[in-house]
Amino acid sequence: MIKGKNLVNGKAIDTLNTITFKTFNAKEKTVLPPSYENATIEIVKQACELADQVFDEYSNTSAATRASFLAQIKIELDENKKLILNQYQLESGYPDGRAEGEFSRTLEQIQSFVDLLNEGSYVNAILDVEIGKPDLRKILYPIGPVVVFGASNFPLAFSTAGGDTISALAAGCPVILKGHPYHAGTSELVARSIIDALDKCDLSPGIFAHLHGEKIEIGSHLVEYPKIKGVGFTGSFKAGKALYDIAQKRKEPIPVFAEMGSINPVLILPERLASDSEIPIQLSNSIQLGAGQFCTNPGLILVCGAEIDSFVDRILQNFEEANNMVHPNISQNYQKQIQEIESHGVRMYRKSQEDNSPTVGVISVESVLDKPELLEEVFGPFSMVVYSPSTSLISELIRILPGQLTATVLGSKKEIKKNITLIGNLQKKVGRILFEGVPTGVAVCASMNHGGPFPASTDTRFTSVGTSSIERWLRPICFQDCPAEFLPEALKDDNPLQIFRTLNNKITKAEV
Amino acid sequence: MIKGKNLVNGKAIDTLNTITFKTFNAKEKTVLPPSYENATIEIVKQACELADQVFDEYSNTSAATRASFLAQIKIELDENKKLILNQYQLESGYPDGRAEGEFSRTLEQIQSFVDLLNEGSYVNAILDVEIGKPDLRKILYPIGPVVVFGASNFPLAFSTAGGDTISALAAGCPVILKGHPYHAGTSELVARSIIDALDKCDLSPGIFAHLHGEKIEIGSHLVEYPKIKGVGFTGSFKAGKALYDIAQKRKEPIPVFAEMGSINPVLILPERLASDSEIPIQLSNSIQLGAGQFCTNPGLILVCGAEIDSFVDRILQNFEEANNMVHPNISQNYQKQIQEIESHGVRMYRKSQEDNSPTVGVISVESVLDKPELLEEVFGPFSMVVYSPSTSLISELIRILPGQLTATVLGSKKEIKKNITLIGNLQKKVGRILFEGVPTGVAVCASMNHGGPFPASTDTRFTSVGTSSIERWLRPICFQDCPAEFLPEALKDDNPLQIFRTLNNKITKAEV
Repeated sequence: MIKGKNLVNGKAIDTLNTITFKTFNAKEKTVLPPSYENATIEIVKQACELADQVFDEYSNTSAATRASFLAQIKIELDENKKLILNQYQLESGYPDGRAEGEFSRTLEQIQSFVDLLNEGSYVNAILDVEIGKPDLRKILYPIGPVVVFGASNFPLAFSTAGGDTISALAAGCPVILKGHPYHAGTSELVARSIIDALDKCDLSPGIFAHLHGEKIEIGSHLVEYPKIKGVGFTGSFKAGKALYDIAQKRKEPIPVFAEMGSINPVLILPERLASDSEIPIQLSNSIQLGAGQFCTNPGLILVCGAEIDSFVDRILQNFEEANNMVHPNISQNYQKQIQEIESHGVRMYRKSQEDNSPTVGVISVESVLDKPELLEEVFGPFSMVVYSPSTSLISELIRILPGQLTATVLGSKKEIKKNITLIGNLQKKVGRILFEGVPTGVAVCASMNHGGPFPASTDTRFTSVGTSSIERWLRPICFQDCPAEFLPEALKDDNPLQIFRTLNNKITKAEV
Repeated sequence: MIKGKNLVNGKAIDTLNTITFKTFNAKEKTVLPPSYENATIEIVKQACELADQVFDEYSNTSAATRASFLAQIKIELDENKKLILNQYQLESGYPDGRAEGEFSRTLEQIQSFVDLLNEGSYVNAILDVEIGKPDLRKILYPIGPVVVFGASNFPLAFSTAGGDTISALAAGCPVILKGHPYHAGTSELVARSIIDALDKCDLSPGIFAHLHGEKIEIGSHLVEYPKIKGVGFTGSFKAGKALYDIAQKRKEPIPVFAEMGSINPVLILPERLASDSEIPIQLSNSIQLGAGQFCTNPGLILVCGAEIDSFVDRILQNFEEANNMVHPNISQNYQKQIQEIESHGVRMYRKSQEDNSPTVGVISVESVLDKPELLEEVFGPFSMVVYSPSTSLISELIRILPGQLTATVLGSKKEIKKNITLIGNLQKKVGRILFEGVPTGVAVCASMNHGGPFPASTDTRFTSVGTSSIERWLRPICFQDCPAEFLPEALKDDNPLQIFRTLNNKITKAEV
């Protein structure tokens, strides 16, 4: 069923390229069949030119048509669920619960865009229609063909039919998906579902292409290709920033939405810590969730004026056995980072000496202020507990903290009030601030913001999770004095789509 | 009254820098007193650090407070109108009507943001509040201190208290304004009005700083300064792209909203041309308006299948005397560009041989397809008429056309219908498409889009004119499970600001 071929124009492409790669059984530590053909520059060109050719057709489809298409993707995925999840578990080593959970989440994400499209107001129609003035009507349009990179840690929800792809397809942008080489098989199966959905909806097969590639060159070629108008990426800072730089050096720079991870500080104030014995347990669970392979893993715990030993001990006691990581490379990198941090004088605690074992580091705030390089992300089940005698040193640490996806503040209301300036400063560094719970578990809804100031993401004005993520792939076009019959539906006088519009500065569903 | 000093923290700063510059009387061709002190790196640092320090205060002001502040700027400007316009006319050479018009437009722009802030829904509050799920509420927040560059061609409306500054101040971002050296005096007077308004509204003087500088270094230092989080610019491609590149090379890249001009193609279809004798007159007026120093000057006229000589003749006959240009540099550059284009075989027509004389070039579409470099902007009262036997060659030209601010299509409904694919392709290249009139005259309203695909602007997703331009300076922050008392007003259960919000996927003013 998995052919290991690149999919362009709805078909598996034979390449003369004999360089292939294989995926890895994350549990058994063996390679998996089949061989995957690395895409070539020729295939990149084919896919990009085709995406450009079909952009006209696809950008002119109605929101209802795209909603049906996305709904069909859900159906196809569901029909192939067993096949997909079997490959997913082989390639990721994730347990049943995680597999089921991520699959459901992926379908729910798609449904949220189906709903968004069916409601229709996302096009942000703005009309200024006054007698004696030019008739001006503005609407959001898709930006053009985009490239999406599959993420290593979420083979479904942040990959082939994940948030980036689905939000771009919802917007009306053709997508070229570069599968993550760690789960190329899963990616190919999901890609086939999307292609089947295109076929059943009578849409051009060129609207979605799927390329394999283990070398970074394929990614560079895709981002460099002049017909590509935007890029979605979730992964490491190094890879995300490299793609960003390539895109900015193009003759025509294009937006790259790279969500590059974060250490997600959790600030625990003393009263709350003393009164809530669940905090270390919740944090412990959050640290080891999915072997710590989450962008929102709580990598930095700031404990203020409290006894630290029993706190760390309770986190440790709750740790389970080491979990598989997605790929030996990730696992090795995790070990390396842990050792490096240890060499800076961070005391390390783990329950077992196994390779991927969840680990807590402990260090004083003064030492971190001395060595800000300790504030870099460790990708894996690790968190660094930083203890401080007072909030004033925490304040200094927040001042030098790089941009983050999230911050969590756990405190009594009295404590929050007392530290409101410090919390305000923390808020300036993040995309989402929590006052309960843990940062892992990113809800998919309109109000979610998954993004944050650089280096958490390359563009803090946009989220990569939730329906607002569609805004990344849209740009405004204004129609001046356009004859009624040529206006897009969303801008017509009688508001046939029955969407909310801003009409002469009033938000309304009223007709002109 | 004009001191030629840099204004930081509300005060004129004395520099040890003895390098000064003067502005130029555009009509009399003489230099104007006083001398202006170039800002130094030290002053850049002072202004940026101060902007960062006051960001906390300013970002936490209510929309109502900022509305009052902007309204006060209007009052101050109006009180100093005579003084400001006197200097404006000396430095720009623009006639009375233009001076009055641009002054009014500047006040109207400010008023539109006062109204936007008082209405308040621009913060795009999104709430997902369901029992058993995390409580998530998202709102737009200011990004941080920003730098705005004054534009040469609009000393008021696109400069010191122009759209970029006012939209950023409306958003809650402190602004450092780099005055354009061609109208440093006007800029300083306007800056004093803003500083006086800050004082009267009891806001910190650090919220707005005004720097003089004729060398590009000052601009580079400002854009490089780590505490700066965004940049607004209107001007040439060369300068805008240079600032963009500087910003992308920072350790933390920041958005640069550079609106870099365009040749604003006007496509005239034969039936309409034959039936509407006003077209050449309207175009002629638009070409010579403000000595052609408009981003939306119609620089390319595509005439399809029609007799060209009498069309060009009617444009020419309507030309008036040569107008002053803002500065001899602009004038010299205009002459140079005209000569260069002529050297490519474009036939040139002008009514007088004076330096800034309005000029029409005439060439066949085949020649332009052969020499696409002819599609570059000539800043001044120039337009190139390209004649074509058929729309198919026009289609090819549109295919190679760089991104534009506007395109205008003049055709009968029958012709528009017939050429709908071609018009669709044109639409993909622009930010605004007109079906009547001329591209000059950019209305200031919510539905305006002044921006377009690169190289017309560096970020096609944002407008620099109209109230939507505030979105450039905002980013989302999501509050998860935040205690009611610490939520921003816009997100509180009872909707105290009475704004439109998206509550559980419904747009409403209802309470939670």
